[in-house]
Amino acid sequence: MTQHNHQTAPTQFVEANDIRFAYRRFGKAGVVPLVFNQHFRGTMDYWDPAITDGLAKNREVILFNNAGVSSSSGQVPTSVQEMAAHAIAFIRALGPTEVDVLGFSIGGVVAQEITAQAPHLVRRLILVGAGPRGADMSKSRSVQIFAGTYDPPEHLWLAVHFSPSPSSRAAGLAFLKRKLLRRDRDPEVSEAAAAAQREAINKYCAPAESVLDYLKDISHPTLVVQGSNDVIVPTVNSYILQQNLPNAQLTIYPDANHGSFYQYPELFVSEADQFLTSELQRDDANLQSSERLPFPSIISAKGI
Amino acid sequence: MTQHNHQTAPTQFVEANDIRFAYRRFGKAGVVPLVFNQHFRGTMDYWDPAITDGLAKNREVILFNNAGVSSSSGQVPTSVQEMAAHAIAFIRALGPTEVDVLGFSIGGVVAQEITAQAPHLVRRLILVGAGPRGADMSKSRSVQIFAGTYDPPEHLWLAVHFSPSPSSRAAGLAFLKRKLLRRDRDPEVSEAAAAAQREAINKYCAPAESVLDYLKDISHPTLVVQGSNDVIVPTVNSYILQQNLPNAQLTIYPDANHGSFYQYPELFVSEADQFLTSELQRDDANLQSSERLPFPSIISAKGI
Repeated sequence: MTQHNHQTAPTQFVEANDIRFAYRRFGKAGVVPLVFNQHFRGTMDYWDPAITDGLAKNREVILFNNAGVSSSSGQVPTSVQEMAAHAIAFIRALGPTEVDVLGFSIGGVVAQEITAQAPHLVRRLILVGAGPRGADMSKSRSVQIFAGTYDPPEHLWLAVHFSPSPSSRAAGLAFLKRKLLRRDRDPEVSEAAAAAQREAINKYCAPAESVLDYLKDISHPTLVVQGSNDVIVPTVNSYILQQNLPNAQLTIYPDANHGSFYQYPELFVSEADQFLTSELQRDDANLQSSERLPFPSIISAKGI
Repeated sequence: MTQHNHQTAPTQFVEANDIRFAYRRFGKAGVVPLVFNQHFRGTMDYWDPAITDGLAKNREVILFNNAGVSSSSGQVPTSVQEMAAHAIAFIRALGPTEVDVLGFSIGGVVAQEITAQAPHLVRRLILVGAGPRGADMSKSRSVQIFAGTYDPPEHLWLAVHFSPSPSSRAAGLAFLKRKLLRRDRDPEVSEAAAAAQREAINKYCAPAESVLDYLKDISHPTLVVQGSNDVIVPTVNSYILQQNLPNAQLTIYPDANHGSFYQYPELFVSEADQFLTSELQRDDANLQSSERLPFPSIISAKGI
């Protein structure tokens, strides 16, 4: 059997929820697979092969286009919750009963909602450049950056994913090169699809009372990753995610923007690999009993 | 030549600044050594052998007692800056012209000041459970926890370093066991020494205008590590360090308190090892030129 990789894996299709989902899978079968959830305007071709192939060494990697995106049929829903429901239907149609889920940007938001809706389908979560419901987008420059024009147009993604420093910019150019290696490419996302994604994001970020409460129920081991100065989803959102998720590790990379993991692909693959293969467990028992325990060992506290 | 480790390395002495510094060194010679700076009330015996021996596999590890602490002579100064000056004198007396510096809690504060005072002596920095000058200690429970009584007394360190969850507590008990393995032990820190340390910490945390400005000059690759809920140095301080240091990576561990790296020693050793051996450079050129660069590639931004 040929071992496929990011460049050679054929686009396949599976039907669920009346959607014909386009997907590609490659890597080492036999362990819990890792399902990638893509960012605003992204297709399967937008992932960094250094990341997908890097992680495919130790597990199967599954890329897909969600409903209405690129080569998948259907319409992009205008809520993240519906996107998550489609993703769950896709995963179930494909067969695995347990998956690890990686989500980037809006994909990281979808990944949280997949976990909230189908907690037993998900083993571990990796959230990159994402925020929680009600995310603080006040300092985001997303609208301005996506509305800009670039020469070449592909350099939009330097502005989105990389910082202005020479080394980040050089990493960005190397990423763009890797990204464009694949020949058999997905169609770009339509304007209508992008508009629906934008509407879903805006609804998701609306402030609301107790908006972070849902995070308490996501007790899955979670790795939260972000750049030090994310101009799309402000970095503080990852800190908020980490502080409110019961079982999350946070990594913030230096001199990095929204695409921090594309700037440090080897470092990220190493960390993600370690996270996915470590002994961590969903720790409901630990978390529940810790609420009942008094502060450890303290017998009496003298006056301050 | 016998290969020493945490348990067997003899306590040696070197003189500088009229102080007779006690130290131990072990591990793989020939690469940049790693100098450990200890926390409030800690001696060389307070380090976790799983960490020191783990990191000693790929470099020489140097433990020492700063001036006035335990087996070192002299007095504990009442400012962190003076502690750093002593540490620099110790390192120079020992011989290496370049070191990596790890600091834990007040040791992490000293590590920053070592770097500020002797930027060319330091190659890379690891700061665990530390804060910047003017650290936000408003939510610290340090005073209450150190004033408590514990049975056995050693369980003070469960309250300081570990969270109340069963798994963190179990990790804490395992740490205490490791910590007590060494037979030839340092004397405990005197009350006078602890009082001076406390005074230095309080001065260091005093709020002041532009108190974080010094961090801009620490362009060394830095790894900042903290627990998700640090009751001694509140976790937000590590986020503030990362956001204000020009070249820092942040890791926050889940379900962890002040001694987060003692809770996940293998994970920490792996991360720290990768950080210390990676291709990262002090990146002054990169940082300076990035200030002059406009936002990358954006040619015109349409109205919002």
